Amino acid sequence: MQGGSRVRSPNLSLVLRQLRDQGPRSRARLATDLGLTRSAASTLVAELEELGLVRTAGVERGGVGRPGSLVEIDGRAVCGIGAEINVNHVSTIALDLSGQVVAEHRLALDAHRLTADEVLDKLAELVRRTDADVRTVGATPVGLTVGVAGLLDSAREVLAVGPNLGWRDVPVGAGLRARLGAAYPLGVENEGNLAAIAEAVPGDATRQDILVIFGEVGVGGGIVAGGRLLRGHQGYAGEFGHMIVEPGGRRCGCGRVGCWETVAGLRALLDAAADPDDPVRDPALSLDDRIAEINRRADLGDTRTRAALDQVAGWIGVGAALLTNALNPAAIVLSGYFAGLGQQLRPLIEEQLQAGVLAPYSGGTRVEFSTLGFTAAVRGGAAVALEAVFDDPTLVAPRAALVGGTR
Amino acid sequence: MQGGSRVRSPNLSLVLRQLRDQGPRSRARLATDLGLTRSAASTLVAELEELGLVRTAGVERGGVGRPGSLVEIDGRAVCGIGAEINVNHVSTIALDLSGQVVAEHRLALDAHRLTADEVLDKLAELVRRTDADVRTVGATPVGLTVGVAGLLDSAREVLAVGPNLGWRDVPVGAGLRARLGAAYPLGVENEGNLAAIAEAVPGDATRQDILVIFGEVGVGGGIVAGGRLLRGHQGYAGEFGHMIVEPGGRRCGCGRVGCWETVAGLRALLDAAADPDDPVRDPALSLDDRIAEINRRADLGDTRTRAALDQVAGWIGVGAALLTNALNPAAIVLSGYFAGLGQQLRPLIEEQLQAGVLAPYSGGTRVEFSTLGFTAAVRGGAAVALEAVFDDPTLVAPRAALVGGTR
Repeated sequence: MQGGSRVRSPNLSLVLRQLRDQGPRSRARLATDLGLTRSAASTLVAELEELGLVRTAGVERGGVGRPGSLVEIDGRAVCGIGAEINVNHVSTIALDLSGQVVAEHRLALDAHRLTADEVLDKLAELVRRTDADVRTVGATPVGLTVGVAGLLDSAREVLAVGPNLGWRDVPVGAGLRARLGAAYPLGVENEGNLAAIAEAVPGDATRQDILVIFGEVGVGGGIVAGGRLLRGHQGYAGEFGHMIVEPGGRRCGCGRVGCWETVAGLRALLDAAADPDDPVRDPALSLDDRIAEINRRADLGDTRTRAALDQVAGWIGVGAALLTNALNPAAIVLSGYFAGLGQQLRPLIEEQLQAGVLAPYSGGTRVEFSTLGFTAAVRGGAAVALEAVFDDPTLVAPRAALVGGTR
Repeated sequence: MQGGSRVRSPNLSLVLRQLRDQGPRSRARLATDLGLTRSAASTLVAELEELGLVRTAGVERGGVGRPGSLVEIDGRAVCGIGAEINVNHVSTIALDLSGQVVAEHRLALDAHRLTADEVLDKLAELVRRTDADVRTVGATPVGLTVGVAGLLDSAREVLAVGPNLGWRDVPVGAGLRARLGAAYPLGVENEGNLAAIAEAVPGDATRQDILVIFGEVGVGGGIVAGGRLLRGHQGYAGEFGHMIVEPGGRRCGCGRVGCWETVAGLRALLDAAADPDDPVRDPALSLDDRIAEINRRADLGDTRTRAALDQVAGWIGVGAALLTNALNPAAIVLSGYFAGLGQQLRPLIEEQLQAGVLAPYSGGTRVEFSTLGFTAAVRGGAAVALEAVFDDPTLVAPRAALVGGTR
């Protein structure tokens, strides 16, 4: 174990991350980038090749000196699995090390009509199916991260309060471990945090310091700083919906008064946009269809719809400005129903941001809308599972049996 | 440069940080901690010894196996210098690599009666004196970080707006470089950010995820996440005082309405606590003395003073709760005038935090009061300057000339 030939995992990790974040490059370039000797960089690349995590791919163009062969991430050896428990569905995704989708499953259900145990049973079944898919293509699953909505006690992996699911003190981590065994690490994470990490695309410098704000009936989200999720002391960061923005305002589902979600959440929009018997307020219809109808009315210039959108956009902007004063992110990425109505909401959100942020030009903070839709949380879960490999590539067993094989 | 014997700086950095954050330990323990081979750890320690950054100190107790000699940071070889430009004074401090104060200077002035150039002249003179002090004890200054209050364009190191100083578009970085030459790196940073990093004591696990909120007439601060300063996209993070907490409330100096500092800043307290001709509102008297008088009145049970403190404490708590919902820090460290009145303010701040935070027990976020007083920003500046050495210890020239010398 203490033999002189074992290469250090901190440097293996640096090399693997550099290839992910900065793209394919030669061994010489890696050495320069990371302050390593050239021979050290070559040794590290060789070890990562042996682990099946990188491969040689083409020749460097346009560099100074002799052309070197390029090294790139080889995604195929390992996969991270992300899963999500939602009031309307359970779902999974498997992403390989280069972020490609290897498998995806989704099962509609109504969590209110099932016990927590029944929901966990169904999710475990989807994970088993996803795991089998991953092994079918010759890859190894390295971890599973499950997203849940609500207040998660992350030390115990217990969902303390899941208001939309109607769950209290459900041991999600232990429940899934009992069903799935311990073939690889399993983590439980707030859904907003996972959605946030999914938006922080590796290698995209404009997406490494972002706020992701997710709007449904509740409003939540996550903070990514320097490409890393900011979880907070006990994992409760990102509860944006319960920032009090209107003292003495409306009562929130949480019992407080004036929470941001009472004025920026889906219910605030629907209450203002339509009468109670209007189909856009019918929870039995698909949210996508109801959002499409609101877009249609707004495009036709319907006064009530436009006024409702303007009112909600103003409040979204108030909260966004408040968070921008505190955090000065490169971008605020609006997700959930906000994304579906992005074109309608953008002008007034940007106006409020300009008005409410002290720094000139809103501190450069851009307003963006998510394009990941409902897959954001599972994608983030898979990315978190893969982080373990980027942290310590030696977690992956050497591919001795596969050398010279079919891959 | 590419010789095989050069040891990698990423691992040198890891070893040096480990000794700073986790305290003295044996080479074997360092190897285990960092996933290095034992021989690699010994080589790295030898290189750091040659650079004068670590030394052998005593023998490990209570470990398993043979006792090993302990390695610890040797602070004496290098110093970071922190400086601050304030409306009432300019000041500097030099801290060695283990955080000990080597020199400290402070010059009272009235920035409103001087030009920006005159203020920079005086600060440059203090820096020269501090630099000389550092060299007198045989250490090498490795960097200077200057804190300024206001909106700093960090890319250009220009203070865009310094409301208290009355400065606009002052090129602080270029101005000091012209005066001081380029003997070592010079940085300019928002004062609130520097105060924040000063509170994040290395090695204190309870102080690595904190919000620091600084209260004078203005309210600002900084965010430390995972021991690192969160500067934001353009360096404007931490403008807490301009979060709008009372829509339709009082007009702020920034032109907006309802900013947090209009209800939590020093002026809000003084307006409520005393008539205009009361000495506690006389800006010609020292703030420390005025705070002492308010404490005295509160302790005597003066109704008006206590009501003013309660009102301000409630608003401090409202903003603290809002930030805690977003960030869930381990602690909120209150600094500036908040610290001077900590005993009076604490109960209502904690009550508001409990009431306003969604997570149970305020998400574990503690309310603390700074003990650094006016030295917070300069201490943070020196710490930032020293970070360059922790990032790359090879920046320090080998101490060949001193080997076998008096040190």
